Amino acid sequence: MTEIYEKTMALFIAEGYEQVPLSRIAKALNITKAGLYHYFSTKEELLYFIHMHNLKKYFIPVLDMAEKVTDPQERITFFIQAFIRKSLTEDGSTRVLIHEVNRLNPEHQIKIREIWARGINILKNAISELHASGKIKNVNKVFASFAAVGMCTWIPYWFDYDRKESAVELAETYSKIFLHGLLKD
Amino acid sequence: MTEIYEKTMALFIAEGYEQVPLSRIAKALNITKAGLYHYFSTKEELLYFIHMHNLKKYFIPVLDMAEKVTDPQERITFFIQAFIRKSLTEDGSTRVLIHEVNRLNPEHQIKIREIWARGINILKNAISELHASGKIKNVNKVFASFAAVGMCTWIPYWFDYDRKESAVELAETYSKIFLHGLLKD
Repeated sequence: MTEIYEKTMALFIAEGYEQVPLSRIAKALNITKAGLYHYFSTKEELLYFIHMHNLKKYFIPVLDMAEKVTDPQERITFFIQAFIRKSLTEDGSTRVLIHEVNRLNPEHQIKIREIWARGINILKNAISELHASGKIKNVNKVFASFAAVGMCTWIPYWFDYDRKESAVELAETYSKIFLHGLLKD
Repeated sequence: MTEIYEKTMALFIAEGYEQVPLSRIAKALNITKAGLYHYFSTKEELLYFIHMHNLKKYFIPVLDMAEKVTDPQERITFFIQAFIRKSLTEDGSTRVLIHEVNRLNPEHQIKIREIWARGINILKNAISELHASGKIKNVNKVFASFAAVGMCTWIPYWFDYDRKESAVELAETYSKIFLHGLLKD
C-alpha cells in the first residue's frame, strides 16, 4: 500500500490531484485500473488514504513527541522545528493535501481536521501556560497559534526542495521569531 | 467588467474554480456564454483578469502605501496590518487565487509573481535597514520575510468571515508577533 500512496502522491505533487486520472496512476504502478479498484473504491477514497498515510508518516509522530515535552517554551520550539524539518521540508505534499481536503467527503474531512486540531491545541495550551506563568504578554491564543501554523504551512509554497539542507536554519529562524514575538520584553 | 470579475470570484470562492463552468458564470451574469467570450477568450484568461483585478483593488494599494513609509519598523507594521485588513480579511479570494495561479499561462504567472515579489521586497528591505541600524538580530531575510507573508496568507484558511470585526485585533497581533520576533532583546 505504501508504494501506491507514495507514487500517487508524487504524481499529485508534480501535476496536481485533478490533472492525474486513475489510468495514469495505474500505469505508474504497473497495474490495471481494475486492479487499482481492489484497494479503494473511488479517487476520493484514495486521496483520503494518501492523506492519512502522510499524516501518520510525517505529522502524527511530531504531535506525539511534542505533547510529551513538559516545558511550554521548549514544547513550542520542538513543535515548530519538528513540523518544519520532519514534515514541511521533506516534499511538497502538504501543499497539495491541504488544498484538496475540500474534495474529501465530510466524515473524512472531520478525521483529518481532528489531527490538524492537535497541532493548534499544542500551541494554544503552551501559550496558556506561558501566560499563566507571566512569561508572555496577553495575546489572543487562537490568532497566535494560527500565526505559527501559517508561517510553517506556507513553506511548501516557496521552499526550494533542491536545497533541503537549509531546513535546519529555517526551523531555527521560525521557532525563534515566533517565541520571541510572544515573550515579554 | 468589475461586475463580471466580482460575481465570478464569488462563485469561485463558494464552489472552486474548476467546479464552476463558464455556462454557470454566464447564467449568474444574465448573459449568454457567447456573450461572455466577448470579454475574454478562455477561462484561463478570465482567471488572470480576475486575479489582476483583485490585486489592483486590494493588494497593490497596500504595496504603494507601504513603500512610502520611511521608518522600517513602521513600514513592516503598516504592511502587515494593511495586508490583513484591506486584503485578507475582506473575503476568501486570496486562498482561491493563490492556489489556482498554477493554471495560468507562464506570461500571466510572471506578471502576478512580480506583484507578489513587491511584498517580499518591502519586508526584506525593511529587515535589512533594521539590521544595519543595529535594532534586530542577524536573521535570514528571505526566511523571515516569508514567515510574515505566510502567517498572513494563511488567514483565509481559518478566518471566520462572519466576524470581520476581529480583523483589527488580528492585524495588531500579527504585526507585533513578527516585529517583536525580530527585535533585539
